[in-house]
Amino acid sequence: MTQLMNSWLPSANRADCDYPLNNLPCGVASTDGNGPFCCTAIGDKVLNLAKLEAAGVIDARGTLSTGSWNAFFALGPAAWESQRERLVALLKAGAPDIATTETHLIAMSAIRMHMPFKVAEFKDFYASRDHAFNVGTMFRGADNALPPNWLHIPIGYNGRASSIVVSGTPVRRPSGQVKGPDETVPRFAPCERFDIELELGAIVGQPSDGQITVDQADENIFGYVLLNDWSARDIQAWEYQPLGPFQSKATATSVSPWIVTKAALEPFRVSTPARERELLPHLRDTKPMLYDIALEVGLAPEGEAETIISRTNYCTMYYSAAQQLAHHTTSGCPMRVGDLLGSGTISGPEKCNRGSLLELSWGGKEPLVLDTGQSRSFVEDGDTLTLRGHAAGKGYRIGFGSCVGKLLPAS
Amino acid sequence: MTQLMNSWLPSANRADCDYPLNNLPCGVASTDGNGPFCCTAIGDKVLNLAKLEAAGVIDARGTLSTGSWNAFFALGPAAWESQRERLVALLKAGAPDIATTETHLIAMSAIRMHMPFKVAEFKDFYASRDHAFNVGTMFRGADNALPPNWLHIPIGYNGRASSIVVSGTPVRRPSGQVKGPDETVPRFAPCERFDIELELGAIVGQPSDGQITVDQADENIFGYVLLNDWSARDIQAWEYQPLGPFQSKATATSVSPWIVTKAALEPFRVSTPARERELLPHLRDTKPMLYDIALEVGLAPEGEAETIISRTNYCTMYYSAAQQLAHHTTSGCPMRVGDLLGSGTISGPEKCNRGSLLELSWGGKEPLVLDTGQSRSFVEDGDTLTLRGHAAGKGYRIGFGSCVGKLLPAS
Repeated sequence: MTQLMNSWLPSANRADCDYPLNNLPCGVASTDGNGPFCCTAIGDKVLNLAKLEAAGVIDARGTLSTGSWNAFFALGPAAWESQRERLVALLKAGAPDIATTETHLIAMSAIRMHMPFKVAEFKDFYASRDHAFNVGTMFRGADNALPPNWLHIPIGYNGRASSIVVSGTPVRRPSGQVKGPDETVPRFAPCERFDIELELGAIVGQPSDGQITVDQADENIFGYVLLNDWSARDIQAWEYQPLGPFQSKATATSVSPWIVTKAALEPFRVSTPARERELLPHLRDTKPMLYDIALEVGLAPEGEAETIISRTNYCTMYYSAAQQLAHHTTSGCPMRVGDLLGSGTISGPEKCNRGSLLELSWGGKEPLVLDTGQSRSFVEDGDTLTLRGHAAGKGYRIGFGSCVGKLLPAS
Repeated sequence: MTQLMNSWLPSANRADCDYPLNNLPCGVASTDGNGPFCCTAIGDKVLNLAKLEAAGVIDARGTLSTGSWNAFFALGPAAWESQRERLVALLKAGAPDIATTETHLIAMSAIRMHMPFKVAEFKDFYASRDHAFNVGTMFRGADNALPPNWLHIPIGYNGRASSIVVSGTPVRRPSGQVKGPDETVPRFAPCERFDIELELGAIVGQPSDGQITVDQADENIFGYVLLNDWSARDIQAWEYQPLGPFQSKATATSVSPWIVTKAALEPFRVSTPARERELLPHLRDTKPMLYDIALEVGLAPEGEAETIISRTNYCTMYYSAAQQLAHHTTSGCPMRVGDLLGSGTISGPEKCNRGSLLELSWGGKEPLVLDTGQSRSFVEDGDTLTLRGHAAGKGYRIGFGSCVGKLLPAS
């Protein structure tokens, strides 16, 4: 599995292709006359899985024509595995009969991508040690940077599912109530400190009722997407005490259109870093639960070239998605198919690894200089932000594609 | 509308009946052989509205046989109003043909109630001045009781929709990570400070996309339920900084089975109290947005008589549901049919008006003595908690019925 699996489709075998046969991500696409339909990506094509099922070539109990992957998730891990095996058999080099499969391939350039699944509920965590330390240092000083609970539980909060959008959807700069440190009363105004958060989102593919272990949580996760949790820092600063972020996080959260399955990421598992405090038993990993996924953020001002403003890796997280999901169930909270868990901003140890502009510009005190010569403290109108990610195998990569959003001016 | 509307059903005309013709709340019920179906309550009966629609007597475009009120909500205010008018015409004293209607009446004792609607997303607020002051005083002292933002925005956070249950569903004492003030490391244990929160829930009946005014928010609200936001105070104390409550609020939230419509509550509108700080224009009321609704909480230990532990009124809130909903949209957050907004704990100025045991027992320092002689700081295993509420008209009442939950021991 750590070698490239060769496909009869040449574009899938290129070392720089995000979608080799090893990947087989899950998306929802439409063409001018057809869809939305469930599909996978292979090389520079997408394969219409709804049509393939209608033709009797694969069997997913009719779930692939629903325009969303949720019903397929609900079929469970055995169905996930058997569909992957069937698709590999159809697409691998030397497959006996490729004619029907070829009929349902469409050029990526001819399709439009949609939200790949219906988000049941959304929660966002705060699980990067470097991110928590950076933000804590800015607000409370380095000595008190980490809250007392941080090394014992993956801190998280519930976000808003209705504002999750698929990559490519423009994002409107929000307005909200803000109060600067020198102002005596708040005012209602467009956000002046609009930010990104580079994250990975984990999708719950199986329901649970009551507390589950970290291993069970890992089994229940279907796959991962890139996730940009757009954040209005000035609105957040005024609203977040005592009950946490609310409107500052409700404008939009962008996700990539391709769900990379846990199966595709299996060869890239890595362990969480050494624990600084021993975790209580219910949160302990029994095997590697993170993944080695290289991540980057590009920022392109309107009409100008992109600068890569951050490069980091998901393996730097302190808590895994499985630990977050296990924690989420401790109170007996039922989890649903389609629940989405944001990893929290993924920062690394160096300045160039920081996953938010808040950290990159150190709260606006050290504006970032772009390759074009412009500087940025926060996102400006017209900026396009692009997240990218991939796991690197030998001669191939498991790509997440990109998660793109352009900021429109406040209305 | 402030007088009793007489019905041909005698039990609906009694002054102490929760469900006179003026009320016509929305529920979902089943009998041994039928349902779940949408229904209303009238006197000591429920009226099967799905059957009434199937018989061609009312027309709600087929929404009443879906086992949930969401599809009816989506029809909009004109449909809400016309169905109310039609039901009044069918059930009022002197209605011309009562035979068909009578056929579809069922004794309340013969039905089982279900969740009346599918909760899209759940958010809970913190909008009682007395509750915020009490809790703030316990944690930060009276001089710093109210957070700086409290008088300017209705503070709220997103909760968990999957853990909302209908009245009558037993609630299991949760476990979670806790750390006492004298402990050096946290431990995982059953909650020792399990509490209730007496609230009203407002149900969003119409979607919105982008910021809406307080008036629009009021128009989009379909109705109200009693809501008990069970809360694990010791888990909350350890987890809630810096991102707010999470697992402490995810065990269960109980709601009453009857949705009392905004139309039924119209005669009982009252204004929010005088503002201590002028609100920014987007949050100002243009008319009375609260309601005069008497509320109480009963606590019955296992096998013993109930003590009324709290009596308060929804009219004491500082922010209305319309203000909360308007605030919720400031960032552009799309709202959905079925979104549920918890008012926040409804406390009043006197000790007997407090809507949580945390306040009633002052954090456990002043245990409450029940009529049976037992004392309570927090909820004990086997206790049954019952919320009740009604608006009082002349010779009639608009009742919410009750919201009941019994605490089972930790598993």
